[in-house]
Amino acid sequence: MMKAGKILLLLLCLHVFSYAVISAQPQTCPAENAGECGDSDGWEGEFFPGIPTIKYEGPSSKNHLAFKYYNAEEEILGKKMKDWFRFSVAFWHTFRGTGGDPFGAQTKFWPWEDGTNSLNMAKRRMRANFEFLNKLGTDWWCFHDRDIAPDGKTLEEANANLDEVVALASKLQKENNKKVLWGTAQLFMHPRYMHGAATSSELGVYAYAAAQVKKAMEVTHYLGGENYVFWGGREGYQSLLNTDMERELNHLARFLEAAVAYKKKIGFNGTLLIEPKPQEPTKHQYDWDAATTANFLRKYGLIGDFKLNIECNHATLSGHSCHHDLETARINGLLGNIDANTGDPQVGWDTDQFLTDIGEATMIMLSVIKNGGLAPGGFNFDAKLRRESTDVEDLFIAHIIGMDTMARGLRNAAKLIEDGSLAELVRKRYQSFDGELGAQVEAGKADFETLEKKVREMGEPKVPSAKQR
Amino acid sequence: MMKAGKILLLLLCLHVFSYAVISAQPQTCPAENAGECGDSDGWEGEFFPGIPTIKYEGPSSKNHLAFKYYNAEEEILGKKMKDWFRFSVAFWHTFRGTGGDPFGAQTKFWPWEDGTNSLNMAKRRMRANFEFLNKLGTDWWCFHDRDIAPDGKTLEEANANLDEVVALASKLQKENNKKVLWGTAQLFMHPRYMHGAATSSELGVYAYAAAQVKKAMEVTHYLGGENYVFWGGREGYQSLLNTDMERELNHLARFLEAAVAYKKKIGFNGTLLIEPKPQEPTKHQYDWDAATTANFLRKYGLIGDFKLNIECNHATLSGHSCHHDLETARINGLLGNIDANTGDPQVGWDTDQFLTDIGEATMIMLSVIKNGGLAPGGFNFDAKLRRESTDVEDLFIAHIIGMDTMARGLRNAAKLIEDGSLAELVRKRYQSFDGELGAQVEAGKADFETLEKKVREMGEPKVPSAKQR
Amino acid sequence: MMKAGKILLLLLCLHVFSYAVISAQPQTCPAENAGECGDSDGWEGEFFPGIPTIKYEGPSSKNHLAFKYYNAEEEILGKKMKDWFRFSVAFWHTFRGTGGDPFGAQTKFWPWEDGTNSLNMAKRRMRANFEFLNKLGTDWWCFHDRDIAPDGKTLEEANANLDEVVALASKLQKENNKKVLWGTAQLFMHPRYMHGAATSSELGVYAYAAAQVKKAMEVTHYLGGENYVFWGGREGYQSLLNTDMERELNHLARFLEAAVAYKKKIGFNGTLLIEPKPQEPTKHQYDWDAATTANFLRKYGLIGDFKLNIECNHATLSGHSCHHDLETARINGLLGNIDANTGDPQVGWDTDQFLTDIGEATMIMLSVIKNGGLAPGGFNFDAKLRRESTDVEDLFIAHIIGMDTMARGLRNAAKLIEDGSLAELVRKRYQSFDGELGAQVEAGKADFETLEKKVREMGEPKVPSAKQR
Amino acid sequence: MMKAGKILLLLLCLHVFSYAVISAQPQTCPAENAGECGDSDGWEGEFFPGIPTIKYEGPSSKNHLAFKYYNAEEEILGKKMKDWFRFSVAFWHTFRGTGGDPFGAQTKFWPWEDGTNSLNMAKRRMRANFEFLNKLGTDWWCFHDRDIAPDGKTLEEANANLDEVVALASKLQKENNKKVLWGTAQLFMHPRYMHGAATSSELGVYAYAAAQVKKAMEVTHYLGGENYVFWGGREGYQSLLNTDMERELNHLARFLEAAVAYKKKIGFNGTLLIEPKPQEPTKHQYDWDAATTANFLRKYGLIGDFKLNIECNHATLSGHSCHHDLETARINGLLGNIDANTGDPQVGWDTDQFLTDIGEATMIMLSVIKNGGLAPGGFNFDAKLRRESTDVEDLFIAHIIGMDTMARGLRNAAKLIEDGSLAELVRKRYQSFDGELGAQVEAGKADFETLEKKVREMGEPKVPSAKQR
Repeated sequence: MMKAGKILLLLLCLHVFSYAVISAQPQTCPAENAGECGDSDGWEGEFFPGIPTIKYEGPSSKNHLAFKYYNAEEEILGKKMKDWFRFSVAFWHTFRGTGGDPFGAQTKFWPWEDGTNSLNMAKRRMRANFEFLNKLGTDWWCFHDRDIAPDGKTLEEANANLDEVVALASKLQKENNKKVLWGTAQLFMHPRYMHGAATSSELGVYAYAAAQVKKAMEVTHYLGGENYVFWGGREGYQSLLNTDMERELNHLARFLEAAVAYKKKIGFNGTLLIEPKPQEPTKHQYDWDAATTANFLRKYGLIGDFKLNIECNHATLSGHSCHHDLETARINGLLGNIDANTGDPQVGWDTDQFLTDIGEATMIMLSVIKNGGLAPGGFNFDAKLRRESTDVEDLFIAHIIGMDTMARGLRNAAKLIEDGSLAELVRKRYQSFDGELGAQVEAGKADFETLEKKVREMGEPKVPSAKQR
Repeated sequence: MMKAGKILLLLLCLHVFSYAVISAQPQTCPAENAGECGDSDGWEGEFFPGIPTIKYEGPSSKNHLAFKYYNAEEEILGKKMKDWFRFSVAFWHTFRGTGGDPFGAQTKFWPWEDGTNSLNMAKRRMRANFEFLNKLGTDWWCFHDRDIAPDGKTLEEANANLDEVVALASKLQKENNKKVLWGTAQLFMHPRYMHGAATSSELGVYAYAAAQVKKAMEVTHYLGGENYVFWGGREGYQSLLNTDMERELNHLARFLEAAVAYKKKIGFNGTLLIEPKPQEPTKHQYDWDAATTANFLRKYGLIGDFKLNIECNHATLSGHSCHHDLETARINGLLGNIDANTGDPQVGWDTDQFLTDIGEATMIMLSVIKNGGLAPGGFNFDAKLRRESTDVEDLFIAHIIGMDTMARGLRNAAKLIEDGSLAELVRKRYQSFDGELGAQVEAGKADFETLEKKVREMGEPKVPSAKQR
Repeated sequence: MMKAGKILLLLLCLHVFSYAVISAQPQTCPAENAGECGDSDGWEGEFFPGIPTIKYEGPSSKNHLAFKYYNAEEEILGKKMKDWFRFSVAFWHTFRGTGGDPFGAQTKFWPWEDGTNSLNMAKRRMRANFEFLNKLGTDWWCFHDRDIAPDGKTLEEANANLDEVVALASKLQKENNKKVLWGTAQLFMHPRYMHGAATSSELGVYAYAAAQVKKAMEVTHYLGGENYVFWGGREGYQSLLNTDMERELNHLARFLEAAVAYKKKIGFNGTLLIEPKPQEPTKHQYDWDAATTANFLRKYGLIGDFKLNIECNHATLSGHSCHHDLETARINGLLGNIDANTGDPQVGWDTDQFLTDIGEATMIMLSVIKNGGLAPGGFNFDAKLRRESTDVEDLFIAHIIGMDTMARGLRNAAKLIEDGSLAELVRKRYQSFDGELGAQVEAGKADFETLEKKVREMGEPKVPSAKQR
Repeated sequence: MMKAGKILLLLLCLHVFSYAVISAQPQTCPAENAGECGDSDGWEGEFFPGIPTIKYEGPSSKNHLAFKYYNAEEEILGKKMKDWFRFSVAFWHTFRGTGGDPFGAQTKFWPWEDGTNSLNMAKRRMRANFEFLNKLGTDWWCFHDRDIAPDGKTLEEANANLDEVVALASKLQKENNKKVLWGTAQLFMHPRYMHGAATSSELGVYAYAAAQVKKAMEVTHYLGGENYVFWGGREGYQSLLNTDMERELNHLARFLEAAVAYKKKIGFNGTLLIEPKPQEPTKHQYDWDAATTANFLRKYGLIGDFKLNIECNHATLSGHSCHHDLETARINGLLGNIDANTGDPQVGWDTDQFLTDIGEATMIMLSVIKNGGLAPGGFNFDAKLRRESTDVEDLFIAHIIGMDTMARGLRNAAKLIEDGSLAELVRKRYQSFDGELGAQVEAGKADFETLEKKVREMGEPKVPSAKQR
C-alpha cells in the first residue's frame, strides 16, 4: 500500500495506460438539426463516455476510476465525509483551462469543445459540467461569471448572455440536485481591469466592476449559492511610484461596503468571502495573506461582514504554510472556505496543483475540525491538470486523487483527535497558565509589578523540552 | 563620480588600504592601578586613535573618513539633515558584534576588549560608544539591556549591573550631549526564552520577561529615551503541532497592555514601537510584517498605543520591498522609526547590511517626507560589518557609507518633491475620482445601482497607460 | 539630477504626460488597393509618427525621447559605445508582446496591428521593426522563427511563410544597414513541444524540432546573423517520476551535435549560444544556470562548440546575482551574449523588465570589459513593457532607459578601471600568492607535506580585513 | 495508523511525556579519583541510563523508543535494510550541538558535559558516542577533526589532541564493532578561515588548511574510514568586488589535486566526497549544487577522483528537490553518500532537520536503488534536534524517526520496483525511441537533413498525455 500522495498518483496513472479507452471523436450534432439532438446545443449523448460513476472501493482497489479513501456517506467524528468537505468543482479550471501558459499555447482540446466562445458552446459546456459532477459524485460547483458565459460588447449584452446560461444551470441544478458553493465576478482578465477593478485609478473601471459584481451576486443568489467570493487579482500594484496605495485601499473599502449593502438589499444570505493572495498577477496584491486581509477588514469596520477563502498555494507563496494561514483565519474568526490545492515548494508562481500530500491534508483537517467544519463554506478544487495532461479521463483522475488525499487527511485527523493525545500534549504544554497567576495574567490583571514580584519569589523558571524533531 | 553605493564603498575601501594606520596595541591600564588611568575601567586614552571627527567634505572628496553627502546642518525642505534622520548607533552591532555566525567563531577582537563580559568591560565599552558617537557626529544611540551590562545569576543582580552601567551612560550623555533614541529588553538570547518570552508556554518565563521589560523601560526613561522597542525574536513558533497560537497571542496582548499601563504609571512619554520580522530565529514570528502587526494591534484594541519600527531587511525577508512596508505602516498611522539596513536579494536570512542602494534610500525618504519626518523616532543602523571586516576603522567607514547613502536618498527625494512632477503624475492618474461621482464614491454614497447606471450611460471606460517600464 | 534608474524613469514619464501626442487612428490602406499604398502590406506612412530619431542630448536633457547617457559614437576605453554594446531589439517582446499574462488578456493594440497573424501582417510588422531600429539608432535585431512569420499547417507551409518574411527582412536590412545579432527557433509555444523539443519523449517531436532548427539556422545564416541561440524553454521536466532524465539529456546532446554538424555544413560561422534558465515554464530546466550548462557541455564534449547567452533575470531566478553568472560564464570561457534585463527581487517568475539599476549595470560592464567585449555577441533587450504600459511611445521610452542605464554602467566601469584602484585592491588581496610558495601552489607543485612544513615554520597566518560593508 | 512523518513524530512525542523518566543528575566521578571510575575521564556508569537498546517492534508499537519500520536484518530487494542504509551518526550535531543560534545562547546541557572543551571532556564524549551507537543499533559514525578533539594553540598541539582522542576512538571501535563512514576537517569555524580555506586570499591559510586536511585524512585512514568529505563552508565569496573567483577556483583545484595525491601516498582507499551547498555561511559557495560541482571537477580533470555527498536540505536551498540533486549526481556517476535531512519549505536557511516526509524518502530510495546502493558510502544524519528539544532521550527519538522514515521510503520504493509499473510507465513513455530511427538518433547518426525528411514523411507527431496531476 502506498503512503505518499504522489506515489499514489503514479500507481493510478499506471493503470490508466492499461485500461483507459477514450473515444477521441467528438460526437457533435450537425448544426442544422441542433434542436433535435442533445440539449439543442449540438452535442449528443454523453460527454464522458466510458467513465462510470466514481465509487468508493476501498484502499485495496487498483481501479483508477474509484475512490480508495473518500467514502461520501461514511461518518467520521459524527458527520458524513461529504458534509465535512462539501467538495466543489471549479468550473474555470475544469472546463475552461486550456493548458496554455506564458510560454505555451493551448494543449487541451476536449471533444465537446468547438473552438468558439459562443453562447451555444457555453451551454454545452454547462451540460458537461453537470455530467462531470454526477459522475464524480460531488454536490457543488463554483464559477466566475465570464467563464460560464461569453462576455459582451456592452454590459447589457454580457448580462444577457449570463442570464441565458444561468437559466440553463438553474434547470440542470434542479434536475441533478446540485448546488453552487460560490460564485464570483472575473475582474482581472479584461484589459479594462489592468490597473485594478475596485482599486483602478479610473472611476469608470470602478463603476464597471461594481456593475459586474452586482450582476454576479444576483445570479449567485438566483442559483442558491451559499457564498460569494472576492479575489482581487488586479487589486494591487506594479510600482509604488505611480500608486496612491491609501486612496486605492479606501476605494476598495467603499466597494466592499457597497457589496455588503447590495447583498442585504437583494436578500442574499450567503457569506461574502475574500481570497488572499500575495502577488501574481500584480507585484503586490492588497489581500496579501489572512492577517493582512484581517487588518484591512478591521481598519474599515468590515470585519463582521466577510470571511476568508484560504487557498493553500496562495498561503505558501506568501511565505506561510497552508496550515498557518488556516489557523490565522480561524483565530480571527474568519475561516470560511478552502481552496484545496498546492504548489511546488521550489517554484515561485501559482501552480494550482491538486493536493497529494497526506501530511498537509491532515493539518488542514485538524484546523477544519477545530473550526467545527466550514459550512456554509466548503472545499473548492482551485486546481488544474498540468499542461501536459491532456486525456479527458485525467480530469477525473486528478479530482479523485485530490478527494482521496483530503479523505486520508480527515481520517488521520480524526484518529489524532479520538486518541486525544495531541490535544493533551498542547494542553499540558501551557498548563502553567492554568493556575491562579495564569488566570490573573489571562484576565489582564497581572501588572508588571506583580509579575516582577513573582520572579523575585520564584527565581529562574524551569523550561521543559518542546519535543520537536 | 560613482553612482551606486556598492561602488562607492569600494572606492572608499581602496583609500583605506593606502592611508589607514591603526594601532593594534591595546592600551590597557594595569589592573592594579585601574583607578588612576582612563575612567578607572583600565583603558587609557582614546579608543579610536587616528580617527578624526568625521566631517562633510562634499562629493569630490576622496577621504574615506569624511562625509560626501551627509551634511548635518544643511537644510533640505526646510529642515536640517540631522533632524530628518536623527541617526542612531546600535550598541549591539557596533560594540557587541563578534563576527560569529552559525558556522564560525568570533573574528572581531577590538583593542579595548579584554575578552570578558565583566561590569568593568561594560563600562569601558560604554565610554568607547560615546567617543564613537562624537567622532561620527551622531546625537543618538540605542541599546538592549543585556548588551550594555552583564546579565546576573538573579534578576536582582542583573538589574544592579544594569543600574551601574546606566549611571555611567547618563553621565556620559550629559557630558557629550547625546540622547537615547530607544531602549529595549533582550528577550531572545537566554535559554529561558527558547519557547518565547510573552508567548512562552511557561508562565514563569512570561513573568520574567515582564520584569525585564519593566526594568528596561525604567532605564530607558531614566536616560531620557524617546522610544521603547519590542522586537519579538522568539514570539512565534517552530511547529504549529505543539503550539496554541491563539492562546499565545492572547498572552502577548496582555503583556503589551501591561507595558502600556506601566509606561503611564512611571510617566514615560516615549513611543512604544513594535518591530516586525517574518521569521528567524523562529520559523514564524507573530509580528510578521507591518500589516500583520497592525491586525494584531487592532484586534486587541492596542492600535493607539503602539507604532512600528520598520526594518528594511525584515521587510524584504517577508516578501515586500522596504518601501512597501514603510507605506503600509504610514497609511495605518503607524510609521514610527526605521532600521535603515538592507539584505542580500539572493540570501534567505537576515544579513543586517548597511544600506548602499541609493534608489532604495530615495524611496525610503519619499515615505519619510510624506510622514512629516519620524520624530520622536529616527533612523537606527541595525546593521553590522561583514564577518570578514575586522579593522577598527571599518566601523566608521560602514556608518559613513550608510549615512551618505541615506543623505543621497534625501537629496533625491527632495528634488523629486520640489520638482513636483512625481506627485503631479500620481494626482493626475486618479483625477477621474476628483469629480462628482468620484466624490460620491469616496464618501461611500455610490451604491451598486448608481454605479451600474453610470456604466450603462458611459459605456466602456478608457484606460490610459501606466507608463511603467 | 536623478541617480536611480527607476526615478529616472519616473521623471521621463512625467514629461510623457505633457508632450506626447500619439495618433490613435490606425492608418491602414484599404485592402482592395493594398498594392498602391505603403509597402503593399496595407499600411501607409510612418508606424511611429511623432517619434523623432532618438539623439544624445546629455544628462541635463529633460527630453524623454533623447538619450542622456548613451552616446553611440563616443569612445570609452578605446572603443565606441555602440561597439561595446551592439544593442539589439528583440522582435518578440517589442513587436509580438501582447500584454497578456496568465490572468489577463491582451492590453496592447498597436495601431498597425490588424488583429491577425497573417503573412501580410507579418510583413507590415517587419517594416515597423526597421523603422523602430532606425529611430532608436540601434544596428541589430534578433528573432524567433515563429514570431516573425506565421506558422503553417505543415512544415513546408511554415517554411514558405518564413522565407517570404525573411526575404523582406533581408531587403530591409540592406536598405537600412541593419544586422541580425541572432536568430532562434521557437520550440516551446506549440503544443507538440509540451514534453520538450530535443528532450521530448516523442521521437517525432525530436525530429520536428530538428527540422525547425535546421530552417531557423538557414535563415539566420541567410540574414548574416552573427549568432544562433538555443533556449530550451521546454527542455526540462515537470515531474521526475515520469522522466528519464539521463536519456533526455543524451538526446539533447545528440541534437546539439547535429546542430554543430549542420552549422559547418552550411558554412554558418556564427556562434552557437545556449541561454540558461532555471525553470518556468517547466519545474526544472536542464540549462539551469551557467555552471550547469557548462557541465553538460563538458560531459558531452561540446564545450568548444557553444557559448552562453546570459540573461540577468534568469540568473537571479536561479539564485545568483547577474554578475555572478556572467563571471561564471566568463571564467569558463563561455561568455558570448547578454540579455540585459532584470526581474523584481520579490517576485518568483520571469518579469523581463528593462534594467534600470545603475549599480548592477556597472557590475555587468566590469565583466564585459574583462571579457574584452562580447563581439560577435552583444546586448539583447529580452525585456518587455509592463502589461499596463500601452502607449506606442512607451516602446521607445523603455528602450531609451535600458540603453541609458547600460551606458551609465559603462561610464562607471570605465572610471573604476581607469582609476585602477579596484583592480589594485583585488591584486593586493591575493599578493601572498605572488611569491615563491604561491607560485609553487599555483603550478600544482606544493604537496600537503610541503605545506604542512611551512605551517610549522610560519605558525598562525595573519588574516587582514576584507573591508566589506 | 499514522501516515505522515510529522504526525508520527507527534504521536511518539505524546508517549514521551507519559513514560520517560530521565535522571537529571550527572553522575560524575570526583576528579581526585578519576582513574578509578568510568574510563578514567571522570564519568561513571551509563551515559543514557533508562534508554534501552532500540529494537524493531513493528508498525503497531506505541513504544517511542522502538523502531516501527526499520528492521536492520530484514531483507528488502535482496539486501538487508542495514546494508541499504549504512546509517551513520554525525558526531557534531549529536554530541557538539548546543542549541545556539544567531539570536540565542546554548540550550542543551547534557549531564555528561562539564562545560569545558578539554581533552578529558573529549574522551568522555567519545565514550558517550559509542554507547549511543550501540543503543541505537547503528554501525557507523562520522566526524570533523575539531569536534572530536580540542583545537590547539599550534598545529602540533591540535594534532596531538586529535591523536589522543582518535586512539580512544580506535579502541572503542574495536570493542564495539563500529566503523567510520567518513571523516573531515573543520575548515570554517576558526577565524583564520574567514576568507576561505583552500580559496582564502592568504597563502598561509591555504597552507594551514592543507596541513589540517592532511592530518584529518590520516586519522580517517587510521580509523578505517571508508570515505573522506570536503564541505567548503567558506569556499565562496561575500562580494565579487573584492574576489578573484577564477584564481580562487584554481587554488581549490590545486588543493584537491594535492589531496588526491596524498590519499594515494598513504594508501587510503576511501572515496573522496564533495558536499555541495549553495550558500550560508558565504553569500555564494563554489560547490553550489551537484551540477556546479560536476562542472568544476570536469574542468580541472578531477572527475574520476571525487564523488558527491548530497545533502537534502542543501539541495532544496539551491532551488532543487532533493531527488533532483540525487539524480543529477547519479547520472554524472557521482552519487557517493547522502546526508538524509530536510529543511523547512518556507525557511531560507539550513535547518538540518531529521527527515519525516515519507514521500520524499521514497524518492530518495528510488535513486539509491537505481544507483545499486551507496556503499562504500551510506546515509549520514546531518540533522539536529530543534533548539527547544532539550531532553537526552530526544536524541534517540529524533534518530528513530529519521531511520523509520527512511525505512518506510525503502519499503515503498521496493514495492514500486517489484510492481514494475513505474519503470514500465517510464519505459513506454520513451518507446518511440526504441525503433530504428530512435536508435539512429541515440547513436548520433541522425543528422538534421534525415530528421527533416522524416518530418515531411510523417507529418505532425502525436503527443500523448503525461498523466501528471
